[in-house]
Amino acid sequence: MTKSTSGNILILNGPNLNMLGTREPEIYGTETLSDIEEKCKIHAGELGMTVTFRQSNTEGEIVNWIQEARGTAQAIIINAGAYTHTSVALMDALLAVGLPVIEVHLSNIFKREEFRHHSYISPASVGVICGFGSRGYLLALDALADIL
Amino acid sequence: MTKSTSGNILILNGPNLNMLGTREPEIYGTETLSDIEEKCKIHAGELGMTVTFRQSNTEGEIVNWIQEARGTAQAIIINAGAYTHTSVALMDALLAVGLPVIEVHLSNIFKREEFRHHSYISPASVGVICGFGSRGYLLALDALADIL
Amino acid sequence: MTKSTSGNILILNGPNLNMLGTREPEIYGTETLSDIEEKCKIHAGELGMTVTFRQSNTEGEIVNWIQEARGTAQAIIINAGAYTHTSVALMDALLAVGLPVIEVHLSNIFKREEFRHHSYISPASVGVICGFGSRGYLLALDALADIL
Amino acid sequence: MTKSTSGNILILNGPNLNMLGTREPEIYGTETLSDIEEKCKIHAGELGMTVTFRQSNTEGEIVNWIQEARGTAQAIIINAGAYTHTSVALMDALLAVGLPVIEVHLSNIFKREEFRHHSYISPASVGVICGFGSRGYLLALDALADIL
Amino acid sequence: MTKSTSGNILILNGPNLNMLGTREPEIYGTETLSDIEEKCKIHAGELGMTVTFRQSNTEGEIVNWIQEARGTAQAIIINAGAYTHTSVALMDALLAVGLPVIEVHLSNIFKREEFRHHSYISPASVGVICGFGSRGYLLALDALADIL
Amino acid sequence: MTKSTSGNILILNGPNLNMLGTREPEIYGTETLSDIEEKCKIHAGELGMTVTFRQSNTEGEIVNWIQEARGTAQAIIINAGAYTHTSVALMDALLAVGLPVIEVHLSNIFKREEFRHHSYISPASVGVICGFGSRGYLLALDALADIL
Amino acid sequence: MTKSTSGNILILNGPNLNMLGTREPEIYGTETLSDIEEKCKIHAGELGMTVTFRQSNTEGEIVNWIQEARGTAQAIIINAGAYTHTSVALMDALLAVGLPVIEVHLSNIFKREEFRHHSYISPASVGVICGFGSRGYLLALDALADIL
Amino acid sequence: MTKSTSGNILILNGPNLNMLGTREPEIYGTETLSDIEEKCKIHAGELGMTVTFRQSNTEGEIVNWIQEARGTAQAIIINAGAYTHTSVALMDALLAVGLPVIEVHLSNIFKREEFRHHSYISPASVGVICGFGSRGYLLALDALADIL
Amino acid sequence: MTKSTSGNILILNGPNLNMLGTREPEIYGTETLSDIEEKCKIHAGELGMTVTFRQSNTEGEIVNWIQEARGTAQAIIINAGAYTHTSVALMDALLAVGLPVIEVHLSNIFKREEFRHHSYISPASVGVICGFGSRGYLLALDALADIL
Amino acid sequence: MTKSTSGNILILNGPNLNMLGTREPEIYGTETLSDIEEKCKIHAGELGMTVTFRQSNTEGEIVNWIQEARGTAQAIIINAGAYTHTSVALMDALLAVGLPVIEVHLSNIFKREEFRHHSYISPASVGVICGFGSRGYLLALDALADIL
Amino acid sequence: MTKSTSGNILILNGPNLNMLGTREPEIYGTETLSDIEEKCKIHAGELGMTVTFRQSNTEGEIVNWIQEARGTAQAIIINAGAYTHTSVALMDALLAVGLPVIEVHLSNIFKREEFRHHSYISPASVGVICGFGSRGYLLALDALADIL
Amino acid sequence: MTKSTSGNILILNGPNLNMLGTREPEIYGTETLSDIEEKCKIHAGELGMTVTFRQSNTEGEIVNWIQEARGTAQAIIINAGAYTHTSVALMDALLAVGLPVIEVHLSNIFKREEFRHHSYISPASVGVICGFGSRGYLLALDALADIL
Repeated sequence: MTKSTSGNILILNGPNLNMLGTREPEIYGTETLSDIEEKCKIHAGELGMTVTFRQSNTEGEIVNWIQEARGTAQAIIINAGAYTHTSVALMDALLAVGLPVIEVHLSNIFKREEFRHHSYISPASVGVICGFGSRGYLLALDALADIL
Repeated sequence: MTKSTSGNILILNGPNLNMLGTREPEIYGTETLSDIEEKCKIHAGELGMTVTFRQSNTEGEIVNWIQEARGTAQAIIINAGAYTHTSVALMDALLAVGLPVIEVHLSNIFKREEFRHHSYISPASVGVICGFGSRGYLLALDALADIL
Repeated sequence: MTKSTSGNILILNGPNLNMLGTREPEIYGTETLSDIEEKCKIHAGELGMTVTFRQSNTEGEIVNWIQEARGTAQAIIINAGAYTHTSVALMDALLAVGLPVIEVHLSNIFKREEFRHHSYISPASVGVICGFGSRGYLLALDALADIL
Repeated sequence: MTKSTSGNILILNGPNLNMLGTREPEIYGTETLSDIEEKCKIHAGELGMTVTFRQSNTEGEIVNWIQEARGTAQAIIINAGAYTHTSVALMDALLAVGLPVIEVHLSNIFKREEFRHHSYISPASVGVICGFGSRGYLLALDALADIL
Repeated sequence: MTKSTSGNILILNGPNLNMLGTREPEIYGTETLSDIEEKCKIHAGELGMTVTFRQSNTEGEIVNWIQEARGTAQAIIINAGAYTHTSVALMDALLAVGLPVIEVHLSNIFKREEFRHHSYISPASVGVICGFGSRGYLLALDALADIL
Repeated sequence: MTKSTSGNILILNGPNLNMLGTREPEIYGTETLSDIEEKCKIHAGELGMTVTFRQSNTEGEIVNWIQEARGTAQAIIINAGAYTHTSVALMDALLAVGLPVIEVHLSNIFKREEFRHHSYISPASVGVICGFGSRGYLLALDALADIL
Repeated sequence: MTKSTSGNILILNGPNLNMLGTREPEIYGTETLSDIEEKCKIHAGELGMTVTFRQSNTEGEIVNWIQEARGTAQAIIINAGAYTHTSVALMDALLAVGLPVIEVHLSNIFKREEFRHHSYISPASVGVICGFGSRGYLLALDALADIL
Repeated sequence: MTKSTSGNILILNGPNLNMLGTREPEIYGTETLSDIEEKCKIHAGELGMTVTFRQSNTEGEIVNWIQEARGTAQAIIINAGAYTHTSVALMDALLAVGLPVIEVHLSNIFKREEFRHHSYISPASVGVICGFGSRGYLLALDALADIL
Repeated sequence: MTKSTSGNILILNGPNLNMLGTREPEIYGTETLSDIEEKCKIHAGELGMTVTFRQSNTEGEIVNWIQEARGTAQAIIINAGAYTHTSVALMDALLAVGLPVIEVHLSNIFKREEFRHHSYISPASVGVICGFGSRGYLLALDALADIL
Repeated sequence: MTKSTSGNILILNGPNLNMLGTREPEIYGTETLSDIEEKCKIHAGELGMTVTFRQSNTEGEIVNWIQEARGTAQAIIINAGAYTHTSVALMDALLAVGLPVIEVHLSNIFKREEFRHHSYISPASVGVICGFGSRGYLLALDALADIL
Repeated sequence: MTKSTSGNILILNGPNLNMLGTREPEIYGTETLSDIEEKCKIHAGELGMTVTFRQSNTEGEIVNWIQEARGTAQAIIINAGAYTHTSVALMDALLAVGLPVIEVHLSNIFKREEFRHHSYISPASVGVICGFGSRGYLLALDALADIL
Repeated sequence: MTKSTSGNILILNGPNLNMLGTREPEIYGTETLSDIEEKCKIHAGELGMTVTFRQSNTEGEIVNWIQEARGTAQAIIINAGAYTHTSVALMDALLAVGLPVIEVHLSNIFKREEFRHHSYISPASVGVICGFGSRGYLLALDALADIL
């Protein structure tokens, strides 16, 4: 992993987000996670920032990446997927690393099942953006441009 | 109230938000609700939209304004303040009016008291943005620029 | 407000009921709250009663009207809408005014979201009628014709 | 059981409703379940409907009667008494038989013990009428006259 | 509203308190809210304080009055009536205005229904006085005489 | 059913109590429900009382027997078995019939599963005796000898 | 009821299962409970077992049948329908009779309403099979062929 | 404390039971705790048992007496009063001393406030007798005569 | 204990209140429980009342004192400290003794941990005063001067 | 991973299932997970299906395998072990992959600790089979033979 | 009580711990509370500390001893037994006295009944040691040797 | 992994514990996890034991290590970090491996957020030690020296 540059943003994606766009495109659209990554990199570039974009289905691997962010990133945008609702480990890692965090969700989790209304990520975040699809990542970058 | 123009956004603010900036400026900053209104109008203008910006401490008055939005606005941005957590009437009004709604909060409500974690506004909204101060209103306008 | 006549019934409607009929008529029908008012007045007339028919989106205004019913009405029919589920103030007003109260809802609230299953109005009412659309108001008038 | 006539209504009464009027008449009045049956038959006749009126203390027998209603009745009025609060079997039978159902209670169950506030009958009913004594059955017949 | 004098106390009364004394005097006594106001003004005068005494059935109007207390009052005594149990907006207003607050109730709310045992006013108050009828207002004034 | 004699006691036994003694005698003992009936009749005779002793697996049949007790029995001893925990119908029947009721259980239900700790029979009973095996029936007869 | 043969299986069906196939065949299919009985008898025959197949809408009647299974059956397959969720009496009967029990449901009860997720039958069963329609009965027979 | 004799029963009474009979005799009767003690001693004598009868308002003192029962008593009858609902210490002492315990209450605690429905004494007892006034102590002695 | 005089008030203090003033005076102030006692005696004297002032760390001892108040005191002021939240015995004693009771707390218990929001003392009290430090005792005396 | 053949079934096993048979064989039997795999392969062969059999202690690895099943398997049988009760990620993966899923457990999870009664796998499954040991896998294959 | 020496540790034992070793020695072992006291004194001596070792069955007496620890002890080790789960008074005393506190339990309370999983002592303690029998006291002394 | 030696202890550390000492040393101290490992090895050596010390952020990897402990370790000390509160898989692994387990936490988890008060590790452990920082590991080794 390269040294921290000014304005490097770590964007983390949790379980099953790698399935985007490849499944039932008539329903979920044809936008893949790679497409979102591309959009984020272009938008970050316009804001004078760089992006490291990652996805994992394994809770522990995401914890590792959060820990490694110290010294290599200036902020974290995280869409923790299902781990949002179950992972104290992610919360602790985010609190420990001490960087600004923005929580993003593609869907409005408050319109879904009751158990998706609780997030262990929120208490460790500056703010939350949900319901705007991939646009939410770009809004999070905009918000970070102000914060940093 | 004037007729609906293309891209007129109704921005509604709930109880006590009129106190912003006039109280303990060393803590909450000196930005007033008027300042936020001004920022919103400038930002909306850049996006080719206009803004109607209102605040009330009375639940019923906000319900009235939501109802009047039909035919005069194309979308609603709402920071319902304390009514977020207690008002079924606001939820019903937002559902009835059938416009795109974005829920905004200045603070990250998930870091505050337990009773502030539940929102009656969220199930009636496209999405939620919280924790970014007045910047959240501008992000909401950006999101609407995509949606409309 | 005029003096109490024998058999004057106050019919109160809560938030968003003024939206009836004007929104999505292919779904909710074209019957407006004015239509219901008209039906109630005709039906009351047949029963030898008169009707005062009101709607407000503001909790406090409905509390005012309940208080004013003393000396001007002999009974209250109330469809409190969303305030049914959140307003202790309405319950207290109904209990204080000491008139016969009938709770009416257009829809069967027990088929809807969990939070709509609880009513603060019910403990202050003689009885409850729900699920029969505008017909419920007329059934309530029939019931009052017996009670009074 | 006879074949379905146009406008035959099955009125079902649950446990202990056969005790009406025979116990403490100075408190509960002298109206018996037979009196209510008589009133229902007269009122139904005026509305051009006929009534089959039954009572049982056994949950399974009421389930049987509901099932037999298919082809012999056009709607069901049910005062399930204590089974209102405990019987999933009655709910399933009502849902299975697919006829319009109206739930009736003599008393306002929402003024009584907490466990009587929940009804398994309500989600299977068009509407609910409670608190009006035997008059509730007649109001239910009136409502059915509109629905059928 | 006049400028703040030294020792001006804002006494706020919530919904239905305007009904005091005019209803069932054989039960609730003949003391009206005006009588309480008069008592408070006399007692405040003896303590070298003045009193502004208000009542409203509308949550938002009480929020307005709390906000206006800044610069015009030195402390607030509030009997929020039914809003005690449901209004986050009142709590937020009291916290925002930053004045000493005393919560008063005529009755001992802990002897009443379960839902009346929780108060949103208490966490924003210096202290609570309940169960002493109108005497509670005078005790609150005494307490303020010490605090101010 | 015979007419009420002075001191006739109806002893009711709920579901599965007919299995006593015939199953795993090395564990539950060899005492059958008939043995208990015999003991009760002898003991009642010594107290100058007679006993009607019944068992059913059907909730509705036990409700029927409770209703029939009016005019034929002076008190009821009931071991409702599993229906103790689920039957509002039994509670209502016991309350309706207006006779002294004693609730008996062979085992100490408070040492068993959580759901057996709640009884719908208790609120309709003079008192409760549990944990003493068949002796509990005799103690209940002794208690009734005092009460009657 | 005939004497126990080697390998006689009692298959019990609870309330409303007799409605299968006769109602809305375009939705629920045309398979009736008789069809399932027939399939079970054929499949049991292939496994060298016989089947007694019963249905009742009355809880107490099913309790009776469970009790009679001692000495006449070697195992029980039970689809208790709605009584699954409410009947402690069935649980107690199954535990008392001491035979191997398999719980079957046509649908996946965990995809349905919350109150259907709890079963009083499960703690008295060897195992549970749900979600496979009438095939579940045959799988249960297969499982019993192993267990017996 | 004297040595254990065959058939010595320790009867323990918790807080406020010493107030019996001296307060509002027109309501609670004139029977004092001394009267109950006398009755118990006579009844025990008839059963060939002796009684040690004690009362304390202090939880710890009752714990002490339970501990001392080892070697001096053969069984314990306890009416723990208010400590029934709050004292784990009493439960632990009763479990530790290993003697047969019978829980007695003068009133039917299941007809009183919800918090009185739970007992820490029950899980440490052979059985429970409640609702029979002072007669409950005598029934407990009868039950012990069988058990010992 | 001396005989009841007209206007003798028993003031009871629960566990740890004897620690007041001797611990961390820079935080809790230097006022000791003796100081409060002195203040109460002076204030009572001015009101023509006398005071008996006690403190104990033992629940049972406070129960004893409450019982002894009959015939020796005309009212009770109680700050039960930690026992406020756990002692049914104190509640029962206060209800049994039948004197006017005022509940006092130095701090506003509703601003503290959740478990301190519930009081077993409140349902046995005329009223509650909390949050005013030692002044609360004097306000309680004032209130009693009115009540007695 | 090989291409999808017709009738390839992915059988997934969660944490600690690799411990089967190697631990305390006198209690759990000597059947290992390899033995179950062998049985499944033989049984699948008889049904004209093939089996891919996997086990992992890591949640993320099982998510990976579920995702890879698209295009390589026609159905999934899953015994998720402890992750059954905690993994939203597995539920989401199963829902996303869109294949028929059967949930299997060796033991009857409804006879075990309360927290094992809830499954995140069930809402994503066609059906559930539990309590039949390794036989459950074979029953699941049988069920799939029908479904596919 | 003697003056504080450097390194005097107050070891407090709650209700029923005086029963250790004298009851069922084949199960609980023959180690008495005196044996534990002796072990503690020897171990403390090796660490250069002295020990005051006490036990009481009375909550208030333990509160007294905690209060007296100020000035006489440098730390407290407490095994509060049953009071662990019910005593706010002990928690308040420990917080008030301001000394380092270590909570000890002989058994692992988290393997026992649900109500033993909550401790009012823990929030007032530096740390908790449970499950190691009398060894836990010695480990607590070791921990204090580090802390002091 | 080497063969089991007499007295080899596996010490497992969960997510984020690798961050110790490298973050905000002015707050958390400069002690790293390596320092703790070193201390443990020295202390174990003094006790005649050896230590295998591991850390992982991945739940499944820790499950693997627990399983491998059979035959290579004689006991396990585990600080499962955030997985303490969420991992049934760890609990099951610890129960399956059948070795003595001691649960350790650096902080007193009972002083932290509510969700940290529940541990899935405790029911699988001999005992718990928390709140003593790295000293807790050494106390756990001392305890094991006794147990083994």
